[in-house]
Amino acid sequence: MPHLDPYFKQVDELTEKFIQRLREAVAIPSISSEDERRPDVVKMGHWLADQIKALGGTVELRELGKQPAPHEHLDLPPCLLARYGDDPKKKTVLLYGHYDVQPAQKSDGWATDPFTLTIDDKGRMYGRGSTDDKGPVLGWLNAIEAHQKAGVEVPVNLVMCFEGMEENGSEGLDDVIRAEAKKFFKDTDVVCISDNYWLGTEKPCLTYGVRGCNYYSIEISGPGQDLHSGVYGGMTHEPMTDLIRMMDSLVNPDGKILIEGIDDLVAPLTETEAALYPPIAFTMDDLHESLGAEVAIFDNKVDSLKRKMRYPSLSLHGIEGAFYTPGAKTVIPAKVIGKFSIRTVPNMEIDEVTKLVEKHINAEFAKLKSKNTMKFHIVHCGKWWVEDPNHANYTAAAKAVERVYKVKPDMTREGGSIPVTLTFQEELGKNVLLLPMGSSTDAAHSINEKLDKRNYIEGTKLLGAYLHYVAGELKDA
Amino acid sequence: MPHLDPYFKQVDELTEKFIQRLREAVAIPSISSEDERRPDVVKMGHWLADQIKALGGTVELRELGKQPAPHEHLDLPPCLLARYGDDPKKKTVLLYGHYDVQPAQKSDGWATDPFTLTIDDKGRMYGRGSTDDKGPVLGWLNAIEAHQKAGVEVPVNLVMCFEGMEENGSEGLDDVIRAEAKKFFKDTDVVCISDNYWLGTEKPCLTYGVRGCNYYSIEISGPGQDLHSGVYGGMTHEPMTDLIRMMDSLVNPDGKILIEGIDDLVAPLTETEAALYPPIAFTMDDLHESLGAEVAIFDNKVDSLKRKMRYPSLSLHGIEGAFYTPGAKTVIPAKVIGKFSIRTVPNMEIDEVTKLVEKHINAEFAKLKSKNTMKFHIVHCGKWWVEDPNHANYTAAAKAVERVYKVKPDMTREGGSIPVTLTFQEELGKNVLLLPMGSSTDAAHSINEKLDKRNYIEGTKLLGAYLHYVAGELKDA
Repeated sequence: MPHLDPYFKQVDELTEKFIQRLREAVAIPSISSEDERRPDVVKMGHWLADQIKALGGTVELRELGKQPAPHEHLDLPPCLLARYGDDPKKKTVLLYGHYDVQPAQKSDGWATDPFTLTIDDKGRMYGRGSTDDKGPVLGWLNAIEAHQKAGVEVPVNLVMCFEGMEENGSEGLDDVIRAEAKKFFKDTDVVCISDNYWLGTEKPCLTYGVRGCNYYSIEISGPGQDLHSGVYGGMTHEPMTDLIRMMDSLVNPDGKILIEGIDDLVAPLTETEAALYPPIAFTMDDLHESLGAEVAIFDNKVDSLKRKMRYPSLSLHGIEGAFYTPGAKTVIPAKVIGKFSIRTVPNMEIDEVTKLVEKHINAEFAKLKSKNTMKFHIVHCGKWWVEDPNHANYTAAAKAVERVYKVKPDMTREGGSIPVTLTFQEELGKNVLLLPMGSSTDAAHSINEKLDKRNYIEGTKLLGAYLHYVAGELKDA
Repeated sequence: MPHLDPYFKQVDELTEKFIQRLREAVAIPSISSEDERRPDVVKMGHWLADQIKALGGTVELRELGKQPAPHEHLDLPPCLLARYGDDPKKKTVLLYGHYDVQPAQKSDGWATDPFTLTIDDKGRMYGRGSTDDKGPVLGWLNAIEAHQKAGVEVPVNLVMCFEGMEENGSEGLDDVIRAEAKKFFKDTDVVCISDNYWLGTEKPCLTYGVRGCNYYSIEISGPGQDLHSGVYGGMTHEPMTDLIRMMDSLVNPDGKILIEGIDDLVAPLTETEAALYPPIAFTMDDLHESLGAEVAIFDNKVDSLKRKMRYPSLSLHGIEGAFYTPGAKTVIPAKVIGKFSIRTVPNMEIDEVTKLVEKHINAEFAKLKSKNTMKFHIVHCGKWWVEDPNHANYTAAAKAVERVYKVKPDMTREGGSIPVTLTFQEELGKNVLLLPMGSSTDAAHSINEKLDKRNYIEGTKLLGAYLHYVAGELKDA
């Protein structure tokens, strides 16, 4: 694809302008989870709409109504439904991203003001939202602009869906996607989302799956009020003793889930899939560095990656109602609630998993012969998403990576959840691709969030190149 | 003892004056754990000293220096060392009590102002400190006054030790007792403490033992920081999983302690001791009422009482560092600290117990084959105290109970701890008696603390009668 060269050249030439665009975006503190910042989220939505319009796109700022209780006094920020190009001869790519950010204040421990883009001598661009997700969203706009200035035609129609509530539960988004699946999104051929990260710092990846999450709680209550352990210890069934035994019955220290039947739901590992793990650019040193200690269960990369990407895991998060502060308190808590969740993978259906968990919980509680009362609660459940990584959408992205970074991308699955992937897959019935721009050290959601200048600029090239390859692949398909 | 009758008559006649004395004491909010109330604690000490002096006693307000860090800006309230009578021909009884109180404010849920003694139509006298421990302390003063007005000689010398920090760790008290054991307290023949409660509401008891408490924690740490359970679940050893298994290894839901060797330390039950439990005025209904639910482990009184009074128990109090608020958080906590304590009984020596616990903890952690780090901490340990209930001190108190209440007292042991009992026993080498005035429904430490008028007035008679009987028993012994 020779016409990519003038495009790439133009991206390089526009580098300072693109950084200035990111600087302006970072300066708007569009924190969606803080009531008093809501006007800034709305401001950010309008700023982004103006940028798209200035490039010749059309934008609807779709109002989503009031936020649900207890924030019903707040209007949800608008969802941007934008379009660039409307040529019936071209394929259509749906782009998703978000323009809101996580909370941040200098006093949290930031080295620089979180809403002033600050570039150090290694080209690290610090600022809230730099990598999550303002940088990637602007990457698409940069790609359009560089095409225009290079005189290269954007080879596909772009339909954009940029929301302002991603960091606060994506309120209202699913409704929009459902409502527009056969309308605004109807011409979509493939979906591309740039809102995750490379596994490491050097090698790009394409992400074709995420785990789901079934979150549960076990509530044990007995005495009418907290009791003094001196006065009543030994006389009464203690809810904590029961709960600790119940929680212990769920998982082994080596991570093995002890709920009967769970393992049977997991899709068998095929040879094709197994072959994806060894090439992935990831080392045990990387893992130990990100864990902050040598506490990995496995001593090798492949088992570690499989555990994260294609096997379920069960974590015990904590207990509500027990003594939790420093110091000593001789209390028998009257009611305790243990929280745990299972990360799910194909082919674990939400309800099947819940049925097995509930059966296990009931059987374990019966074993206790306790006079306390047990309640099992489903807190929330979200399904896993897995895409066919051999689809033209992925082949195109892989070629774009090779063109820009001179390396084959890793094919990865995320351990965590990105619910919107599943919604697009289910509502549109189209292939969804996660095409990350940032790297594993970007500290999204943490202090000192950053995006490397290289990832921003080469990433802009990548997004643009992807559009050309996907146009080609889809035509050939 | 015919001279008790005019004394009893005088107590009845002075009832209103005695209630007024309690009213004045309750009105001074001598909360020892609140910095800003410290002047009120000191004021209360002086008020009490003045009361003793007005009755002809001598009082030293012993200064105890500064409170330990982080409250080193505060002077400890004085410990009152008082004496009434100094007749070498008489036996000497050491009285201990405290003039400080637990925190209280109307907004906690009190039906009346906690520092205004309020008497309802059933004779319940509500007010902070009414039963814990101002009522019982004033009971001794009332007894002296009624003796004087009845023209009956107090048959023993009284040495008093009234502290102002009992509700805040009894700072400085042990030092005073040690320092004065061979000086101010040197003539002590027996010790009597009125600072606990009947098991029920109708039958008085004498308390000859309390359990000790060894409080421990298990700290498990691994990852350098809290991790996202989606991203890392399944790849890493999770401190919570390890801790839950460790805590589960300590105790069964039926209360059985699983630490090897603990049961072997418990003194065997003799026939004499076994005979003490069946007559105790206590029913399963009482237990269920105080538990607030039918969650007692045993279905009979005797087993329940033995578990509380003469067997150890282990309670799991909570976990520091894990997720503890309502809602859901998909966190892998990086460092968690499990808190538990063992209530100890004869002949469980503190260090022997700790050795067994530590051995158990180390063995269980080794079983996990976890790469996390485990630390075992001793938080605090206090020994049990048991007295010979056949000593003249108890025989005298039992006779006094029969005289005043027309019933033999229950012989009980407390499940909780009263450390000063052990200090007096060890430092003075004298028999210590717990002779409670209040009943099980008095709500010490809770909202709506009260002392029944009957318990205050008959209790004053009881304390006075005890002095006569103990003088007699000690002379005969």
